[in-house]
Amino acid sequence: MLKLYGLPLSNYYNIVKQAMLEKGIAFEEVPAPPSQKPEYLAKSPMGKIPCLETEQGFLSETSAILEYLEETHPVPKLYPAATYERAKAREIQRIAELYLDAPSRRFLGHIFFGAPLSEEAKGEVRADVEKGLAALGRVARFEPWVAGKDFSYADIVLLYCLGLTRSMMNAVYQWDPLQNEPELRAWLQLASERDHSRQLLAAQQQAIMDMKAGKKPTP
Amino acid sequence: MLKLYGLPLSNYYNIVKQAMLEKGIAFEEVPAPPSQKPEYLAKSPMGKIPCLETEQGFLSETSAILEYLEETHPVPKLYPAATYERAKAREIQRIAELYLDAPSRRFLGHIFFGAPLSEEAKGEVRADVEKGLAALGRVARFEPWVAGKDFSYADIVLLYCLGLTRSMMNAVYQWDPLQNEPELRAWLQLASERDHSRQLLAAQQQAIMDMKAGKKPTP
Repeated sequence: MLKLYGLPLSNYYNIVKQAMLEKGIAFEEVPAPPSQKPEYLAKSPMGKIPCLETEQGFLSETSAILEYLEETHPVPKLYPAATYERAKAREIQRIAELYLDAPSRRFLGHIFFGAPLSEEAKGEVRADVEKGLAALGRVARFEPWVAGKDFSYADIVLLYCLGLTRSMMNAVYQWDPLQNEPELRAWLQLASERDHSRQLLAAQQQAIMDMKAGKKPTP
Repeated sequence: MLKLYGLPLSNYYNIVKQAMLEKGIAFEEVPAPPSQKPEYLAKSPMGKIPCLETEQGFLSETSAILEYLEETHPVPKLYPAATYERAKAREIQRIAELYLDAPSRRFLGHIFFGAPLSEEAKGEVRADVEKGLAALGRVARFEPWVAGKDFSYADIVLLYCLGLTRSMMNAVYQWDPLQNEPELRAWLQLASERDHSRQLLAAQQQAIMDMKAGKKPTP
């Protein structure tokens, strides 16, 4: 059986977990924090979470794992059926990861783990996120899902990336990046209300509260 | 006919261009610098290069374009045939993009365009690149290609990402990240000697020299 390593605190863990739940794949969760220990690096070469244990070996990097799951468990599809639409879904995923989540993540150490706030980051990140949001607005379909009429990986990736983005932007700039984005807000409500989303977002919120309260993370 | 927008100065432009040349796809090149002008943003939502014009519309983000090309032009394959090996090839691509190219890119403005050197970046990037190289070493196969016995997208992506990484590490730290990596050096030589690689790497070098000499970039 597939084994998913990671913690529900992590966006990318939740992205892969929701993909597996949506596809009805049987899997086991293995609680694992990010780690630079040799035994974990042998599984996940950057020491990051999530990583997936398959019968043939380990696999890391969320986007690689999602493609693998689509190929090994094609039903239900989590990509649009048409080639060009599928490519646009992947483009949306990259926008969410690289231009919303990645800049926002520069504050993670400060907000969650007490690291000093980088003034360089504070000077750059809001404009980066505004640019990412504008880019998303140019390709998002909202029909009602972000890549078209079917729920897809693009919705799952955007859901968690946007959650981190909002939380970091609120904490650092007291700014809600969705304030002038009615279509995105409507999509977010729809995506958040999905059964598996509710379950995973609640577990993530609990994990965040536990961490802030100084509890050791558990899945 | 497919149209590829961008400039040979750009790693990601060269990655997509080499993929199309390797596949023998007919395409036209449209010289285009990165741009925040509305007419270009309508094509490439972040204003980045490359972007690809297809019969159905535009597509940006190199990894999305590569998957699209593999689906629309499956022969010759640029992914391993087996599902797990294909997933590992994608994992290697992400390592090259996110943990070698992306940190090194923080110096691009300084080295190429005269922006001030960020002390924060200078303090962080070398360790980031060392970590990325170690990660690559854990998954690279060198049989002789990086993802196995067949030349793949992983080789193309790594070739250009590693080129940028070496050039930035040399410029900022006078450090060759390949000095203790004999297998990677041997692979780099093999990958660089491929016909399409030679052609594109030479054009990229010329574009870098022209830019340093203050010439307007042309493809």
